[in-house]
Amino acid sequence: MEEAQRKVRAYIQGNQSDAAKFLQRVVQEGSVRGKESSAQAVIIEKCRELGMNMDIWELGGEELTNHPAFCSDRNNFVGNPNAVGVLPGTGGGRSLILNGHIDVVPVGDIDSWEYEPFSGKIENGRLYGRGSTDMKGGTVSLLLALEAIIKSGVTLKGDVIFQSVIEEESGGAGTLSTVLRGYKADGAIIPEPTNLKFFPKQQGSMWFRIKIRGKQAHGGTRYEGVSAIEKAELILKEIRELEIKRNSRITDPLFSEIPIPIPINVGKISSGDWPSSVPDIALIEGRMGVAPDESMENAKQEMEQAIEKVASLDPWLKENQPVVEWFGARWLPGDIEVEHDLVTVLTESFTEIKRARPVIEASPWATDGGILNKIGGVPVVVFGPGVTKMAHDANEYIELNDVYEVAEIIAVAIMKWCGTENDGT
Amino acid sequence: MEEAQRKVRAYIQGNQSDAAKFLQRVVQEGSVRGKESSAQAVIIEKCRELGMNMDIWELGGEELTNHPAFCSDRNNFVGNPNAVGVLPGTGGGRSLILNGHIDVVPVGDIDSWEYEPFSGKIENGRLYGRGSTDMKGGTVSLLLALEAIIKSGVTLKGDVIFQSVIEEESGGAGTLSTVLRGYKADGAIIPEPTNLKFFPKQQGSMWFRIKIRGKQAHGGTRYEGVSAIEKAELILKEIRELEIKRNSRITDPLFSEIPIPIPINVGKISSGDWPSSVPDIALIEGRMGVAPDESMENAKQEMEQAIEKVASLDPWLKENQPVVEWFGARWLPGDIEVEHDLVTVLTESFTEIKRARPVIEASPWATDGGILNKIGGVPVVVFGPGVTKMAHDANEYIELNDVYEVAEIIAVAIMKWCGTENDGT
Repeated sequence: MEEAQRKVRAYIQGNQSDAAKFLQRVVQEGSVRGKESSAQAVIIEKCRELGMNMDIWELGGEELTNHPAFCSDRNNFVGNPNAVGVLPGTGGGRSLILNGHIDVVPVGDIDSWEYEPFSGKIENGRLYGRGSTDMKGGTVSLLLALEAIIKSGVTLKGDVIFQSVIEEESGGAGTLSTVLRGYKADGAIIPEPTNLKFFPKQQGSMWFRIKIRGKQAHGGTRYEGVSAIEKAELILKEIRELEIKRNSRITDPLFSEIPIPIPINVGKISSGDWPSSVPDIALIEGRMGVAPDESMENAKQEMEQAIEKVASLDPWLKENQPVVEWFGARWLPGDIEVEHDLVTVLTESFTEIKRARPVIEASPWATDGGILNKIGGVPVVVFGPGVTKMAHDANEYIELNDVYEVAEIIAVAIMKWCGTENDGT
Repeated sequence: MEEAQRKVRAYIQGNQSDAAKFLQRVVQEGSVRGKESSAQAVIIEKCRELGMNMDIWELGGEELTNHPAFCSDRNNFVGNPNAVGVLPGTGGGRSLILNGHIDVVPVGDIDSWEYEPFSGKIENGRLYGRGSTDMKGGTVSLLLALEAIIKSGVTLKGDVIFQSVIEEESGGAGTLSTVLRGYKADGAIIPEPTNLKFFPKQQGSMWFRIKIRGKQAHGGTRYEGVSAIEKAELILKEIRELEIKRNSRITDPLFSEIPIPIPINVGKISSGDWPSSVPDIALIEGRMGVAPDESMENAKQEMEQAIEKVASLDPWLKENQPVVEWFGARWLPGDIEVEHDLVTVLTESFTEIKRARPVIEASPWATDGGILNKIGGVPVVVFGPGVTKMAHDANEYIELNDVYEVAEIIAVAIMKWCGTENDGT
């Protein structure tokens, strides 16, 4: 086992620049929602090179779309498949899912980017581009770990199921589809950008939309209308108060280092279509965090009650109730014990390589781990390279050394978890 | 003269239902910006029927676009002309411009409309539709007045210049083009919806856009970003305070009945493109009122200083100054004495027909009167049918009786102002 570890780690250390080039290719195929296919093709090509048994399919079917956890406003998955590569073990070991998502969020304001958002430019050990951190860097760590094990001739006892899924950023329909297709395992690792922390508990989250009515009028007689923007400001204030209230209840020590454990993020507002008119509709869209031990339903109710409260205090909103919708994305929370054997195996691997203890926290964001955990019954640890704050930001980048180091830690963890038949050939 | 008046007024009273049908046709040709041609065609057809000398042209040329008062972000006027019809007098009388705009503002939220926005539906003496009040009703009053004079065989001494212009809602390039083309006169009436009040002073206004920067981050770690929406809320608050400050200075008695004499209307906000991201850009667009005796430059400076002030108090905005732009529409204020002879003539006409004194106020909004007045040197009174608060609102409508009554008042005023050769034939 020690010999196998040595070979595998040496392989990773000797193939860093190829891994960086591979990550560059994956980032350059910008895979925003609905355009995942070309990046997915690069991943699939690599899996085929490694000799994995590939299962490639487009999402669909009533079992998926009627499932209570299905959540997507996308009506067309054609041409943008999920991809799963299986490395069958010889038997007698524990199976492991390695899950990464290929979809990336939009680039935002293009002017805020120093380099072209899908450049994949490498400078001072950092690789830049939308998706580099969230989470193509982590996916490359997974593939580099598997490549090292395979190329070193190490034979695993347990099955490894590598998954490259779509739709993580929009509600997890990709991972839900893998579960319904039958992919389950004794454990799972999701290398989202945790900055090498372990997240055995993951926050859930869901998207909301609040529609606020005003009354149109000419801007020059704006006192004859009711500004939907002014009414939206009342709602924004109430949302911040609700966030404070909900977070004051969080006592789990895994959240102790997180400034806002379960944030409510207002990500979008739009109102009005003419500078000289009083706007009559405002739409607010955002993302509500859900505690690992909280039900989605409870969180929804708290939001709806808060909006009802603010409406009850304003004469106009009392007569024109804002409407709360839950739409698009929804991620279930995930929750395994800190004492779970998967955490132990990862901690051992981490400690051997980093010569330090890992930080174990609750995740500040939701992942597909909630679906694997709550629907698939799979124990999940989220652990990967990349700094959380770069995800979704302009000038997103990843430190390449973190990608290589996580590959080593995960490679060793795979061997420990699945068991090995030999020390490599 | 009394006989001429009797005939002309009788004509208007006898042709009300044809006038209503004509207004219906004009409203049904919804003429939002860039699509003014078909409504304009209906107007032109009517002018030709009345035997006016028509001048129809598309806006353009350097004299227009380089003019300091030119203000438009529109780069294509092809196919959507201005139209002017001249009714030459026999000489020795005063000339009069009758100016109406054909463009209408967007319909806003379609669900707020009881009838289809361009239905032109008539019910209980009201005609419904976008543009009915602002200001196709007034334009029909003008044409009905002219038709009555012409069909009654009354010959005028002074020239009447009827103008149906584009771009009033977006900065007045249409009326500016008439001035530069040489159309000037001893007086002008603009039948915007004043609810039959006289507005010898008109508020100016201009559009602003404020760009506010935030810092993108994942919504789950929103504390690592800076929400452009939250920073925009500070700006919105400051704009309301500036509005209060500016209005507290207005002492002109013509404004005494107006709740907010020179409003600052925020008509639009947009920020963010993803519910789970912290938004990094917010755009606010609005319309700032300018007092009749105030310079546009002074108003601009006050806004810019207010935004600088709020930025100086916020550490993030201090480093990331919001940017104020003045774009798109700009309307100059207009200002003639209450004692001007045009006001007197209109007052006499009004009193004869309504058996009551008119209300004389300052306008709560800007009109093309500012350009006619400040650039063309033409004394302007704004006076027309329709209720201000219906302009730009959903379910916009006009009381048809007001259209007919204004036609009578304006017809009599035309005869008094221009002088008549005969009593009709």
